[in-house]
Amino acid sequence: MSDLKYWIALSMLPDVGPIRARNLLEVFSTPEQIFNAREKELVSVEGIGANRAKNIRAFKAWDEVRKQMEVMESKKMRAVHIGESIYPEMLKETADPPVVLYVKGDPHPQDRYAVGIVGSRRPSLYGISVAEKLSEDLASMGFTVVSGMARGIDSLSHNGALKTGGRTIAVLGSGIDVPYPPENKGLMEKIAASGFVVSEFPPGTPPDKENFPRRNRLISGLSLGVLVIEATADSGSLITARYAIEQGREVFSVPGNVTSPASEGTNDLIKKGAVLTRNAEDIVAELAPVLKGFIKVKDKVKIEVTDEEKQLCDLLSGDPKQIDLISRESGLPTSRVLGLLLGLELKGAVKQLTGKRFYLA
Amino acid sequence: MSDLKYWIALSMLPDVGPIRARNLLEVFSTPEQIFNAREKELVSVEGIGANRAKNIRAFKAWDEVRKQMEVMESKKMRAVHIGESIYPEMLKETADPPVVLYVKGDPHPQDRYAVGIVGSRRPSLYGISVAEKLSEDLASMGFTVVSGMARGIDSLSHNGALKTGGRTIAVLGSGIDVPYPPENKGLMEKIAASGFVVSEFPPGTPPDKENFPRRNRLISGLSLGVLVIEATADSGSLITARYAIEQGREVFSVPGNVTSPASEGTNDLIKKGAVLTRNAEDIVAELAPVLKGFIKVKDKVKIEVTDEEKQLCDLLSGDPKQIDLISRESGLPTSRVLGLLLGLELKGAVKQLTGKRFYLA
Repeated sequence: MSDLKYWIALSMLPDVGPIRARNLLEVFSTPEQIFNAREKELVSVEGIGANRAKNIRAFKAWDEVRKQMEVMESKKMRAVHIGESIYPEMLKETADPPVVLYVKGDPHPQDRYAVGIVGSRRPSLYGISVAEKLSEDLASMGFTVVSGMARGIDSLSHNGALKTGGRTIAVLGSGIDVPYPPENKGLMEKIAASGFVVSEFPPGTPPDKENFPRRNRLISGLSLGVLVIEATADSGSLITARYAIEQGREVFSVPGNVTSPASEGTNDLIKKGAVLTRNAEDIVAELAPVLKGFIKVKDKVKIEVTDEEKQLCDLLSGDPKQIDLISRESGLPTSRVLGLLLGLELKGAVKQLTGKRFYLA
Repeated sequence: MSDLKYWIALSMLPDVGPIRARNLLEVFSTPEQIFNAREKELVSVEGIGANRAKNIRAFKAWDEVRKQMEVMESKKMRAVHIGESIYPEMLKETADPPVVLYVKGDPHPQDRYAVGIVGSRRPSLYGISVAEKLSEDLASMGFTVVSGMARGIDSLSHNGALKTGGRTIAVLGSGIDVPYPPENKGLMEKIAASGFVVSEFPPGTPPDKENFPRRNRLISGLSLGVLVIEATADSGSLITARYAIEQGREVFSVPGNVTSPASEGTNDLIKKGAVLTRNAEDIVAELAPVLKGFIKVKDKVKIEVTDEEKQLCDLLSGDPKQIDLISRESGLPTSRVLGLLLGLELKGAVKQLTGKRFYLA
């Protein structure tokens, strides 16, 4: 732990963000060596000019760093640096992971299978019910639910995960000792006990407006994909979706009535290529290649068919059969058989090949 | 007109559908020559075996053909054969256009710019309001609205087109002298006067269940694209969408709440690649390459409103709201609110649905 103070100092350097910090680490291996380096060595690092090199040499806020470490100790928080194995894996794979994360609770390797759920702070009744259902379903399947602890969809999603005994992560735009919104203090404690609360802002940071886009970047960065439940046309959730795309993560969006302003943003995302999402299974299906069997959908439900449809199914097998033959064998006119088969195709019971050949799905 | 009887006879031949009829016409040029051909000549046509050739030679139902022609004359209907310039152009471009169409009303070349609108026979309030709005908007842009005159979305769509003075086409699964459902007799007369009613089934044909998939094929065949407003997972509208894809026509689908069974089919269509459709502009944007400037989106003009009108507009959205609620929310008496809303409707800022429900235009 002795080098943690250098990691925190590195994260506090003015004008040195995650990317420049990584450049420095590539040259100097440890943060301690960065602070012991000569100005000439520092200037040679990509993105570090004369001014930044001077700032690093002149760094004097060690008292502040020590105070922060004491505060964290007393409040049972910790700083996790990017060199630690406990640092969230998915976030580490993004282009600009923060050098230090402030954490309350316990990150776990299975949090790799995380889905971000975001949306309106003032959801409709529809948005509320979908957020509750999807967060519960995803958490009970084994996904960690990531959100921003804001009012509305965020809080509903954390609560849904907690309700099923699943894991959840809250990403804050303030310090992790500054619950925001204030009424979510109790929720924050529960999240810390069933996952973790995380921020890239040091303890004591107020929830300034400009912190939230950066916060959103972490929500998507921690997740395999981001699910937007409801969003007006100018919702901040759309910024999170945007980050997800930049980070190569999936965007899931729940469609809604075109007459509802709360679904304008979500319908628009679908039109632009987001995965139309009706239920948790839609998410699992899309993420299957990266889930590697860690999370699976339960067995398909039985398909209900009418007597007439059943009669046709009995004539079919896995082997494609031409419609004229099916018509003859069933004693029904071709047009009627075609109608029934198309209905069965829509139910997912039958599949069609060219030349009007059908087989059991 | 003397050869019309041969066209009708050709359409009546047992086991000779549109594709075999076309093969015969390619060899014999006119229907009359088909009926004068020798069996040996007929057998050589693709798809015409010994049995069908015999049936053609043995065709004796000329009395029935004549009777049909008399019925049509007396009821102001007509049979339009595929060789006529009045035969609908878009339908002619499909793989299997009917040889003869029975028509009441006047087909027009501008019907080439047609959109099929289909959906549930038992729509939700949401489906009703979207069908009303989209059919009115599309018709007033200059699109001909094609539908199946069924209960629910179909009837709403025809009525929406009629309300704006636009053109509309009803495709029946019965003869065009057999209104179905019966309560739509009056609607049918209006459609015949502002477009046309069409069927591939001869006059007197009852609305048998097996006719409807074939009817659906004509709805999509007459249209540049088919718009599905609401559809349950097993809705017949999905068959129409399926035909549209086979015919190379566009499929448009209106998203809806994932909790609504009436939107299951439409959301599924979008997931499978249908164009997510929020308004008429989405349709125009997608069809732009084939519309060749015939139909354009109007520029929105700025509407001047008074302070009081502005107050009401702020309470409204695209979602229809009942007048009592608007009155309560605004603190103004219902009569005053109604007056203001009607003024706004005249200015084009607000639209009204049945049941005194209002939404922003």
